[in-house]
Amino acid sequence: MKKLLIPFCTLLLCQNFLFGQQVDIYERLGYPKDSKLLIIHADDLGVTHSENMASIEGLEKTPVNSASIMVPCPWFPEIADYARKNSSRDLGVHLTLNSEWNYYKWGPVSSVDAVPSLVNKDGYFYASVDSLLSVGKAEEVEIELRNQVKKAYQSGIDLTHLDAHMGAAASRPDYLAAYMKIGKEFQLPVLLDGRIYQIQDQGVKDLLDERTVVMDNILGAAPSDFDQGMAAYYKSVLNNLSPGLNCLLIHLAYDDEETRAVTVDHPYWGAEWRQADVDFFSSQECKELLEEQNIILVTWRELRDKITRAP
Amino acid sequence: MKKLLIPFCTLLLCQNFLFGQQVDIYERLGYPKDSKLLIIHADDLGVTHSENMASIEGLEKTPVNSASIMVPCPWFPEIADYARKNSSRDLGVHLTLNSEWNYYKWGPVSSVDAVPSLVNKDGYFYASVDSLLSVGKAEEVEIELRNQVKKAYQSGIDLTHLDAHMGAAASRPDYLAAYMKIGKEFQLPVLLDGRIYQIQDQGVKDLLDERTVVMDNILGAAPSDFDQGMAAYYKSVLNNLSPGLNCLLIHLAYDDEETRAVTVDHPYWGAEWRQADVDFFSSQECKELLEEQNIILVTWRELRDKITRAP
Repeated sequence: MKKLLIPFCTLLLCQNFLFGQQVDIYERLGYPKDSKLLIIHADDLGVTHSENMASIEGLEKTPVNSASIMVPCPWFPEIADYARKNSSRDLGVHLTLNSEWNYYKWGPVSSVDAVPSLVNKDGYFYASVDSLLSVGKAEEVEIELRNQVKKAYQSGIDLTHLDAHMGAAASRPDYLAAYMKIGKEFQLPVLLDGRIYQIQDQGVKDLLDERTVVMDNILGAAPSDFDQGMAAYYKSVLNNLSPGLNCLLIHLAYDDEETRAVTVDHPYWGAEWRQADVDFFSSQECKELLEEQNIILVTWRELRDKITRAP
Repeated sequence: MKKLLIPFCTLLLCQNFLFGQQVDIYERLGYPKDSKLLIIHADDLGVTHSENMASIEGLEKTPVNSASIMVPCPWFPEIADYARKNSSRDLGVHLTLNSEWNYYKWGPVSSVDAVPSLVNKDGYFYASVDSLLSVGKAEEVEIELRNQVKKAYQSGIDLTHLDAHMGAAASRPDYLAAYMKIGKEFQLPVLLDGRIYQIQDQGVKDLLDERTVVMDNILGAAPSDFDQGMAAYYKSVLNNLSPGLNCLLIHLAYDDEETRAVTVDHPYWGAEWRQADVDFFSSQECKELLEEQNIILVTWRELRDKITRAP
């Protein structure tokens, strides 16, 4: 299951203007003022073979232009191999602190003795963010996040960004500080939105500077959107996209036996949901809407190189 | 890949007679003298969803009457759930010290800090038994084997036996001693054949007693058998089965996208091989041959309860 960061658009715009990033985001990236900038981002790569194949197809044949990888997952070596051979793809680490499905599990890349508070009695990550939050120590979160990034680099991936599976790494101020700190260590932008300016934690405040990338909107389907039809939701997103920096989070996998077995008993973010994402983003309609709405697709690589690693 | 224990039939029979087990195996199990006793055993449960589904189908609908589970693998929770709900099934632990496929990986259930010699730089088990043998310390093998059995018990599985994935846990005298020691600790029979009597290691010799189960023949298809057709091989096995205690190792999975992706670039023990096993053991011909040849199917549970745990 995925806990999305809910965008606080109005507040965010105020805050960002105060803080100063959005004032020159267009200039810094080199796009006309008030452009609608969008990253179409596939989450969860590495989780299954099906997710890998559908996401690679998305990156190669559709407007989906960025994705992030779950390093602790069993199929990580498959997507790492693809990333090595396709180094121009925009790929980051989907920092993972949960193992949410019923019958298919993974645990930390760190030695369990180094991060005992992050695992359940079976040695797996907790299924829910709430379970993690009740026992997971921030210092162990930091160790695990760092090891995931290190392992991705050791595997030869030219990382463009970091984000947080199920929002877990951004779900508490001390975790959030660890998440931002790891980004800073590796000079990688991390997925954040304007709520970051409201966090009163000094550790977080100290990590905010002019190299911090902050989204104006983080968008993603919720269960009610799935219930009402995914194509309708995505059309609405594209038709109503605000000017500024937007990140749309999607999940690409085929509705096949593997995906159905992994996501069994999860009515949302399951096989049907992920296939609906594949279907919409490979449609002619999606392509046309992006053009009609003058949406400019931007990548995390641009954000990394022009903001986080600006000379 | 799977390194099978090659049976040393003639030698084995001599040795067993000397040692005394086979003299009364029929009596101890309650079968007529000179019966052809056979376990049809599916390996590798837990490795994939496809392996789980095909093996469950095999156990429920075909003469396949025993199987063993790879505890460190991602789909272990799925088969553990099945085992809990079907406690009369004959299920053991397929003790695992290797992760042999290219793009789909697992590592120890122990904390890596406790078994550093068993993992490669990515934290996974070594792909080959040879790599393991060159660096893997026997004391760490013992720790990991014990933790796999403990985890299986903690998951609620009523284990009937232990065996060794790719033969790794039986591939060196000091590993073999650890493997037999773990069996003794949990009062579980372990898969061995007559070669055990030739091992000069004192640790091994000390573990042999009247409660040790020793197969007369461990049988399993080799690459040349696959090249010549699996049905022909299995028919030959059943038509020529020797009297005594026989264990036939097979691998059940469907030739589907998941199995093909896991076993990619492995011409043997791949999707086609595993589907061929499904096909033969679910055939009417297999059933008829077992009857014609007066083959008696026995389980590891019988061996456990009548020999290893004999009053």
